[in-house]
Amino acid sequence: MSSSYGENIRMTIFGQSHSAAIGMTLEGIPAGKKLDFDELAAFLSRRAPGKNAYSTPRKEADTPEFLCGIVGDTTCGTPLTAIIRNTNTRSADYSQLKTLPRPGHADYTAEVKYHGAQDYAGGGHFSGRLTAPLCIAGGICKQLLKQEGIEIISRIAAIGGIEDEGVLRASTAEKEFPVVSDLQGERMKARIAEAKAQGDSVGGIIECAVLNLPVGLGDPMFGGMENHIAQIVFGIPAVKGLEFGAGFAVSQMTGSENNDAFCIENRTVRTETNHCGGILGGITNGMPLTFRAAFKPTPSIAMAQKSVNLETGEQTELSVTGRHDPCIVPRAVPCVEAAAAIAVYDAWLGRKKEV
Amino acid sequence: MSSSYGENIRMTIFGQSHSAAIGMTLEGIPAGKKLDFDELAAFLSRRAPGKNAYSTPRKEADTPEFLCGIVGDTTCGTPLTAIIRNTNTRSADYSQLKTLPRPGHADYTAEVKYHGAQDYAGGGHFSGRLTAPLCIAGGICKQLLKQEGIEIISRIAAIGGIEDEGVLRASTAEKEFPVVSDLQGERMKARIAEAKAQGDSVGGIIECAVLNLPVGLGDPMFGGMENHIAQIVFGIPAVKGLEFGAGFAVSQMTGSENNDAFCIENRTVRTETNHCGGILGGITNGMPLTFRAAFKPTPSIAMAQKSVNLETGEQTELSVTGRHDPCIVPRAVPCVEAAAAIAVYDAWLGRKKEV
Amino acid sequence: MSSSYGENIRMTIFGQSHSAAIGMTLEGIPAGKKLDFDELAAFLSRRAPGKNAYSTPRKEADTPEFLCGIVGDTTCGTPLTAIIRNTNTRSADYSQLKTLPRPGHADYTAEVKYHGAQDYAGGGHFSGRLTAPLCIAGGICKQLLKQEGIEIISRIAAIGGIEDEGVLRASTAEKEFPVVSDLQGERMKARIAEAKAQGDSVGGIIECAVLNLPVGLGDPMFGGMENHIAQIVFGIPAVKGLEFGAGFAVSQMTGSENNDAFCIENRTVRTETNHCGGILGGITNGMPLTFRAAFKPTPSIAMAQKSVNLETGEQTELSVTGRHDPCIVPRAVPCVEAAAAIAVYDAWLGRKKEV
Amino acid sequence: MSSSYGENIRMTIFGQSHSAAIGMTLEGIPAGKKLDFDELAAFLSRRAPGKNAYSTPRKEADTPEFLCGIVGDTTCGTPLTAIIRNTNTRSADYSQLKTLPRPGHADYTAEVKYHGAQDYAGGGHFSGRLTAPLCIAGGICKQLLKQEGIEIISRIAAIGGIEDEGVLRASTAEKEFPVVSDLQGERMKARIAEAKAQGDSVGGIIECAVLNLPVGLGDPMFGGMENHIAQIVFGIPAVKGLEFGAGFAVSQMTGSENNDAFCIENRTVRTETNHCGGILGGITNGMPLTFRAAFKPTPSIAMAQKSVNLETGEQTELSVTGRHDPCIVPRAVPCVEAAAAIAVYDAWLGRKKEV
Repeated sequence: MSSSYGENIRMTIFGQSHSAAIGMTLEGIPAGKKLDFDELAAFLSRRAPGKNAYSTPRKEADTPEFLCGIVGDTTCGTPLTAIIRNTNTRSADYSQLKTLPRPGHADYTAEVKYHGAQDYAGGGHFSGRLTAPLCIAGGICKQLLKQEGIEIISRIAAIGGIEDEGVLRASTAEKEFPVVSDLQGERMKARIAEAKAQGDSVGGIIECAVLNLPVGLGDPMFGGMENHIAQIVFGIPAVKGLEFGAGFAVSQMTGSENNDAFCIENRTVRTETNHCGGILGGITNGMPLTFRAAFKPTPSIAMAQKSVNLETGEQTELSVTGRHDPCIVPRAVPCVEAAAAIAVYDAWLGRKKEV
Repeated sequence: MSSSYGENIRMTIFGQSHSAAIGMTLEGIPAGKKLDFDELAAFLSRRAPGKNAYSTPRKEADTPEFLCGIVGDTTCGTPLTAIIRNTNTRSADYSQLKTLPRPGHADYTAEVKYHGAQDYAGGGHFSGRLTAPLCIAGGICKQLLKQEGIEIISRIAAIGGIEDEGVLRASTAEKEFPVVSDLQGERMKARIAEAKAQGDSVGGIIECAVLNLPVGLGDPMFGGMENHIAQIVFGIPAVKGLEFGAGFAVSQMTGSENNDAFCIENRTVRTETNHCGGILGGITNGMPLTFRAAFKPTPSIAMAQKSVNLETGEQTELSVTGRHDPCIVPRAVPCVEAAAAIAVYDAWLGRKKEV
Repeated sequence: MSSSYGENIRMTIFGQSHSAAIGMTLEGIPAGKKLDFDELAAFLSRRAPGKNAYSTPRKEADTPEFLCGIVGDTTCGTPLTAIIRNTNTRSADYSQLKTLPRPGHADYTAEVKYHGAQDYAGGGHFSGRLTAPLCIAGGICKQLLKQEGIEIISRIAAIGGIEDEGVLRASTAEKEFPVVSDLQGERMKARIAEAKAQGDSVGGIIECAVLNLPVGLGDPMFGGMENHIAQIVFGIPAVKGLEFGAGFAVSQMTGSENNDAFCIENRTVRTETNHCGGILGGITNGMPLTFRAAFKPTPSIAMAQKSVNLETGEQTELSVTGRHDPCIVPRAVPCVEAAAAIAVYDAWLGRKKEV
Repeated sequence: MSSSYGENIRMTIFGQSHSAAIGMTLEGIPAGKKLDFDELAAFLSRRAPGKNAYSTPRKEADTPEFLCGIVGDTTCGTPLTAIIRNTNTRSADYSQLKTLPRPGHADYTAEVKYHGAQDYAGGGHFSGRLTAPLCIAGGICKQLLKQEGIEIISRIAAIGGIEDEGVLRASTAEKEFPVVSDLQGERMKARIAEAKAQGDSVGGIIECAVLNLPVGLGDPMFGGMENHIAQIVFGIPAVKGLEFGAGFAVSQMTGSENNDAFCIENRTVRTETNHCGGILGGITNGMPLTFRAAFKPTPSIAMAQKSVNLETGEQTELSVTGRHDPCIVPRAVPCVEAAAAIAVYDAWLGRKKEV
C-alpha cells in the first residue's frame, strides 16, 4: 500500500491537505517504551511553517492528538494513532487545479489516475502537509533510537547551488537555520529571498547522518539500508535524487581511492574513510550512515507558467497564487531525519530476529 | 524479506556464488503470456562475463533452466522458477575472506551479521553473480511490458568521469558497448584498460529510460515510481546513488527553470521539458521515465590494500587475487534495465486494481 | 502487522477500549466509489449494544467520524480513516485485571506479552469494542461489493446448542434477531435469558453466505478464499472454529457423497449440491460461498471463577462485574458479514491483476 | 502472493505436478542453525505415497536437493531453496481434464481463472504433490522449534466417522498409522479398504498439538495464532474445517463450563482445562496449542460421476482413472505438523521484536 511503510514496524499516513484531519498509525512499536511529548513537540516545530521569511506565512496547528497506543507516556503494544486537525483551510485558493494543472505538481497525474475523483483542494494527499504525520512517526522512532544510543543529525548541505562548508555535527541540527557555516547560511537565505522577490523558488540538498549504529543492520539485496532509506526518503515530496556516502562521486573514483581501508580504533573495527556511507552489502558497518537527498525547487511559484486546460485542450498561462515556501529545504530537514529514523528503527527491530 | 521484491508480482532471488545453484521465483505473472526464450537468452548474454577485455575472464554458464510456471512457452499462472547451476566454482580463491575482510566488500558486515556462519565463498549471496537471476526476472518483465508497447532502454552515461555524449535512443542498448558516442566509448574503454593495468578499477553511471508509459502508474507517498525503482535498483551491488530526471541538478535550479511546462502534442498532454523524469507526485505523466544510477568502482582490486585480521585484531595488507571486472558498469547495464522492468511491470499490474 | 489485514486493500484497526478513540484506515479503495452513509449507519447499528435484553446495557456512540479518504460521499483514492470517540468509559470497573486475570480473557497473555505495559482498561485492544471499526471497514466493502452485484447474508445458526431451522435467505439478516425460524429464535433467546439469570453466558454459531460471486476469485495454496476468510474471521474475538460448505461433516462422507456434481443451469456451469461451499482449489466456482463460525460463550460472567493472583501466586476467586453480553452471537452477526466483505472485496480487486 | 506464507520467515512454494520440478524457498531463517538431514528425510517419508494398501501406489522420489541457504549442514542466513524433480510423470492420464472437469477438483475453477492457460496435467499447482515442499519447509521449522524445546505432535482423530480414542501423546506420531487406539486404527483401515473396493474414498480429521510453547506468541486481531495457523492449514488441499481447543463444541457450552480456570503448577501459571486450545486473545498461554482440521474425502474416485463438457455444454459422466489415495488423511498428518511448525516458528521469531 502506497501510504504505508515498513516491515518490522508499519507506518500508515492518512489525510488530505483539506480533509477533516491528517494523521498516522504506527504498528509494531514494542510495549513499555517511554515517549517524551515535549521533545516530540520540539521536533515537530522544526517542520512547522510560518516562522520566518523563507517559509510560507500559513500557520498550521501541528499539535498532534494521540488517540491510542499509549497509556500515559508509555507505549502499550498496540497501534499508535495520532491526528492533526486541518483548521486553517482556504479551499477557495485551489478551485482551478482540476482543469488547469500546475507544472511540477501532481494535479495532472492525479486527475488521470483517480479519473477525476481526487481531492484536489490544497494538493490533497500530495500536499507537503502530509509530512507532518511523517514527522510524528519519525520523531517517535528518533526517540526510541536515542534510547538505544543511536543519534540522527542533519543539515542543509546546499540551497540554490550555494554549498554549506565544514563537517556536519550534532549541534548543527539545533540551529534555527541548520548549516555548519553561518556565513554560507546567510548566502543561502539571500538566495531564497531573491527567488521569492522574483516570484520564483529554489531547490537544495539535505545531508543526514545516523551515528552509533551497531554493525549488522540491514540485509543484502532489496533489504539493504540503502533500499530501506530510499523507499521512504523518495516519499518526501520534491526529492529527486539520493546518494549514500560519496554517492555520485564514486563514479569518478578508482577502487583504490574509493575502498575504505579497515583499521582498528579502540579495539573496534573501523574504516579510515567512509566513502561507503557506513553501508557495505546493504549492511551497516559501524561507521556513520550518511546520505544526501536532492530537493527540487517548490513548484508553486507566482511567476507565469505555461499549462494546458484539460477540458478544452487549449494552451494557457498559469500563476500560482496563495502562500507557498520559496524554498522547502529548511522545513524538510526534520522530514529527512524522520524518514531516516523510521527506516533505521525498522531495521533495528528486524535485527533481533536473526539470532 | 530482503531477497524478495514486489507488491503485485513478487520476485525472490536465491543462491550463493558457490552454492549448487542460484535462481529466482516470480509470482503473480498472469496466465497465458507468451515468453520468447531466445530473446531472453540474448538479454542475459548482455550481462554474461568473459566476453571481452574489460570484464572478468570467468565463464559463467548462464543458461537458466525453468522448473515450473510455464507450459511450453506460455505462463500458466503459477510461480515461475528458473535456476542456473554454479559450475565454474573455484573455492580455493576465497579462503582468507573470513578473517581478512576485503575493503569495499561485505565480508566484515556479513561476518558480524551472520555471526560467522555466512557462506563467504565467492561473496556468497552478496556476489554480483546474483544479478543473473535478477536479469531472468527482469528479462521476462521486459518482454511482458513490450507486449503492452512499453520499452526500456539504457546506456553507459559515464565511466571514470568520462561522459557519453548525445541523446539516449533505443538502438544504443543493442551495441556491444552501449554508448551513444562511440568516440567517448573508446575513451571509456581506455580508462578501464588503464585501471586494469594498474591493478585498479573504475566506477561509472548508467542511464535508463522507460518509454511509452501510460499516465497514472505509481502512487503518492511510499508507492511512488521513484520509491519502487529505488528499492530494487539499490539491490544491484555497487549502486551508491540514484536520481530521476534532472536529479541532483534540480537542487541548483529555480522553480521557473525546473517546472516542466504542459503542452499539447498530437492531442495528448505532454511537457516541453522532462526535468521531472516522467514522474509527478510519484505517478507517471506519460513522458519518458528517466533515471541514472551511480556505480562504485569494483572493490576487488589487485593493488595492495589495508585491512585488519578479525581474529588477531592486527592491521595487515591484502591483495585481492582472482578474476574480477576492472569495471562492472558495462555488464550492469542489463541489470539496471531488468530492475526497471520489474518495478514498472509491478506498477503496471497494480494500476488495474484502481477502477 | 497484527492489526492490519489485506493484500489488495489494507485495513488497519487501531484503538483500545478506553483510549481516546478507536478507528480504522482502509487503503486501496479505488477512487470514485459512492458510499451511502445512511446504509453504513444502519449496518453499524446491527452491532451496537444496549438495544435489548440479550446484550449489554452499555451504550456506545458508534457514529464514525470520517477524517479523510472521501470528498463528499465519494472515495478519492487516498486512505479512508474513520474514528469513533470512546465516551462512555468506566475505568473503575477494570482495576483488578492486571493482577487477577479473568479466565477465558487475554488478561494473562497480555500481561506477559507486553511485560506489564498493556492497556488493561476494558480489555484494551482485545475488547470486542474493536469490532466496531471492523464493521466500518466491512460495511464499506459490503457496499462496494453490492455495486458489483455481490451480496453477503448471514444468520444465527445456533445458540447454546439450539439450532435454527430452514434455509438462509437474504431477508433473514434484516430481522432484529436474525434467524430463519422465529420459533427457534425464541428458544435461543430463552436460553440466553436463562444463562443471564444464572450469571452465566452461552456461545453459538453464525452462518454466512456470499452470493453472486464470479468464478475465479481466490488462489491456490495460501491465497485461497478459505485462507483469506479464515485470517480475518479468527480476528473476531471468541471465534474458535471455522468451516466451509459441509465443513467438519465432510470428514464422515465418502467422495461420491461429498463431490458436487457439475451441471448446466441457464447455460451456466453450476453444481447440484454445494458441499464445497462454493470454493474449489481455493477459488470460487460461482456457487454461494458459505461458511460457519463457532463463537465461544462470553468469558465475562458474574459467577465466581477460579483464578490466580499474578503478584502473590495465590489461588483465588474472581467474579466479573460490569455490563457484559450474556451471549455475543447476535451482535457478532454483522461482524462476520463485515469480515467476509473485506476478504471478498480484497479478492475481487486482486482478480483484476490476472489478465 | 498466494504461494507464499509468513511474516517473519517467508516460505514460497513453486512447481506443478508434472513440471520439471517442485520446490520451496524459505527466507528469514537465522544463520548458524544446524539441520539434521536424516531427520528431515524421515519426516518426509511419513508423507510419501506407495507405502501401503491405503495410499496411492505411485512412487515419488521425494528426496529434496538443497540448492542454497546452507553451508554443510548449517544455515548461512540466505534463502534456503530445495527442489524435488518430477520423474514419475504420466501425462497421458490427465488428457481430459481441460474439457471435462472432475467434481470436487479445481479443474473448472482453474480453467476459468487462468482462461485456459493453466497446467492441468496432474492437477498442476493444485496437486497434493505440492505438499512435499510444504513438508520440507515444515520439517526444517520443526527441527528449529525442537532446538528451542518446542514439540509438535499429531494423530488421525477420525476417518470416515470412526474416531480414535485416548489422549494424544508424542509417541503416537511415530506409528506407521498414527492413532492412539490401534483397535480404532484397524477399524479406520477397514473403512478405507471398503471405500477403495467400492471405487470410492473417505475423509477424516487430524488433531495436532504444539507443546512447551512460551507464553506470549501471537498477537491480537489478525495476527493471532489461530489466524496464522488457519492461513497455512487451509492451504493444505482438502481441508474444509478448522477448530482450536474445544472448537465447535464451545458453541454449546456456557461460559462457566468453557472458561479455563487459572491455577498454579510448579510455580507456573496454568489452566485446569484447555478448552481455549492454549490461545487467549490470539496469544499463547503456555498450555498445549491444540487444533483439529477436517479433510474431505479424496475427490478422485473410480465411481462414475456427473460432470459437464465445458466445450459443448453437454451433461456427461466421468470416472477418474489413475492411481489415487482412497483416503488422504494418513499421508496428510505430517503436512499438518509441517503447517503448524511453520506458523509457530514464524511467531517465535516475531516475538523477539517485542522487547
